[in-house]
Amino acid sequence: MSRYWSPIVHSLTPYIPGEQPKIDRLIKLNTNENPYGPSPRVLEAMKAEVGNTLRLYPDPNADSFKTAVARYYGVKPDQVFAGNGSDEVLAHAFLGLFQHREPLLFPDITYSFYPVYCKLYGVHYETVSLSDTFEIIPADYRRPNGGIIFPNPNAPTGIALPLAAIEGLLQHNTESVVTVDEAYVDFGSKSAIALVDRYPNLLVIQTLSKSRALAGLRVGFAVGHQKLIEALERVKNSFNSYPLDRLAIAGATAAMEDRVYFDKTRQMIMHTRGKLTEALSRMEFEVLPSAANFVFARHPARDAEALAAQLREEGIIVRHFKQDRIAQFLRITVGTDEESAILCRALHRILGHTA
Amino acid sequence: MSRYWSPIVHSLTPYIPGEQPKIDRLIKLNTNENPYGPSPRVLEAMKAEVGNTLRLYPDPNADSFKTAVARYYGVKPDQVFAGNGSDEVLAHAFLGLFQHREPLLFPDITYSFYPVYCKLYGVHYETVSLSDTFEIIPADYRRPNGGIIFPNPNAPTGIALPLAAIEGLLQHNTESVVTVDEAYVDFGSKSAIALVDRYPNLLVIQTLSKSRALAGLRVGFAVGHQKLIEALERVKNSFNSYPLDRLAIAGATAAMEDRVYFDKTRQMIMHTRGKLTEALSRMEFEVLPSAANFVFARHPARDAEALAAQLREEGIIVRHFKQDRIAQFLRITVGTDEESAILCRALHRILGHTA
Repeated sequence: MSRYWSPIVHSLTPYIPGEQPKIDRLIKLNTNENPYGPSPRVLEAMKAEVGNTLRLYPDPNADSFKTAVARYYGVKPDQVFAGNGSDEVLAHAFLGLFQHREPLLFPDITYSFYPVYCKLYGVHYETVSLSDTFEIIPADYRRPNGGIIFPNPNAPTGIALPLAAIEGLLQHNTESVVTVDEAYVDFGSKSAIALVDRYPNLLVIQTLSKSRALAGLRVGFAVGHQKLIEALERVKNSFNSYPLDRLAIAGATAAMEDRVYFDKTRQMIMHTRGKLTEALSRMEFEVLPSAANFVFARHPARDAEALAAQLREEGIIVRHFKQDRIAQFLRITVGTDEESAILCRALHRILGHTA
Repeated sequence: MSRYWSPIVHSLTPYIPGEQPKIDRLIKLNTNENPYGPSPRVLEAMKAEVGNTLRLYPDPNADSFKTAVARYYGVKPDQVFAGNGSDEVLAHAFLGLFQHREPLLFPDITYSFYPVYCKLYGVHYETVSLSDTFEIIPADYRRPNGGIIFPNPNAPTGIALPLAAIEGLLQHNTESVVTVDEAYVDFGSKSAIALVDRYPNLLVIQTLSKSRALAGLRVGFAVGHQKLIEALERVKNSFNSYPLDRLAIAGATAAMEDRVYFDKTRQMIMHTRGKLTEALSRMEFEVLPSAANFVFARHPARDAEALAAQLREEGIIVRHFKQDRIAQFLRITVGTDEESAILCRALHRILGHTA
């Protein structure tokens, strides 16, 4: 506390990201990073940008990247907004689109940054319960609101909502912005970007941190109607003219262009997810049906927090949330087949099964 | 306008950065970039970071960079805040430290982003006139306020305030935060970081865009009392956990460490500034005494906007501001000696002098 702080600062409860340990040789399955690394074309594009031109400001509009996203999704570049990670894009959306009299709605179990943004920008919100099977029920969102946001697939459950359900939600909710946060969409569900030309109140947000393996580069984007993008641009240009550096623009552009590497690596991750799900199930874990690059699983007989601690002793870190309803789950990133195998052997030992 | 926007968005008047033209062969003297490019050690550090580890999130706290800044200035790492360009650091300071009942004070002629931040975060402000010779008069800031901010040297005048004057201001203003925005401090004035251990309400903000030649990398920082840094960290961690990507952290750390290259290049720029000032004076320009990597100059007989347009026809871009009191000035970045010579020859032609 300090008398110099703005009053709002006293009440902030910052988001706590998953641990980024500075220890080598850990098997890091706690923040849903991609095990395969970025495309070689991305690395080439970035190397070419490491030079004297770093003395010059980047393109404030990141046009090359917006064009690459627009091409990938068959939209226009002015329907694309670019930001310093999807967290920044989300922040601008909360400030620019959700400050209304009616409350913002989001699931009770979801990305835990949402209530943090609400506090930062004074956005009034209400949470909507997931079903007993941890699913989003679109009909529950049919009530007065100043916006709706949810991840699809949802985090940390990994469960996806079909596109038809999202379209139904849009048809019943025309007076406020519906934002679909698609951080994990490339691992087995369908992007709502297909709907943006029909629904002027639909904003879709994606990140290059997961399926494009660029968590270290900090690039996210939003796609929607030009008027929604304009709101984000106005906020961005009142905050920081140049959110993406030259390397981020170069790398992110190449990442959107290399479809072959992208498809190959996400298929590999989905394949490993299938095998990991089976292996965990054989150890009696209940595994929610995941369309993400992680699984969300609980064991009927073991405390999740204790399990996470035991895994850590084996050099494996997974994520545990101390939150009602999900405190007995572990969120486990899908790594390589080898990492999965090491994880499963460790779990076998911990659970006392024979390997 | 859109019914989906938060009300605040309608009233935003975004900052307009200097043009970043996509045309080659222009002599670009409009956004105060460094003509010499970053240190070779910076480029090496960044190249080493272009690889598979980009799949992993960066250090959310950018500790290596904070440590390098702390070493350079003889402060503690927890007195350092890091952001995605000093514009982001400034934005967090406006939200975290300036939302008070009393108005924020800043000069009437200054960095034009300040009123933009105020609008974004609902910060009440009053401007304080520079003197007739465009100087900041510290005594004029002795009135009730919820904060004080000014660049030192000031932009776009380039005029520096001596450290003793800043200390006087701090002695008379103990109840609100005094922020010194030192984007250009390395070109000939003294950093107020020397005072942070004595004044718990002093925040100093710097950028790596100018003297470290990394405008394309987007890194800025603040130094101050731990309590002020904590306010910025709370805002940052409610906005975006990972504002600096892996390459920015690596490059910025190396930039703070390579003192030899840094000193050599800033000396070269100061030397060129001296020669440019003389040459402009010989052409009858009035040149304000600059401690920055730009000069602010007006010609007694020529309209500044017309001059800027004529220079552009010659392939040279400089900055002109349509603002009261300074509408007859041009802000000209100090480039290489060769760029200065080309500029001066063009001005000779335009003014009708013989070269």
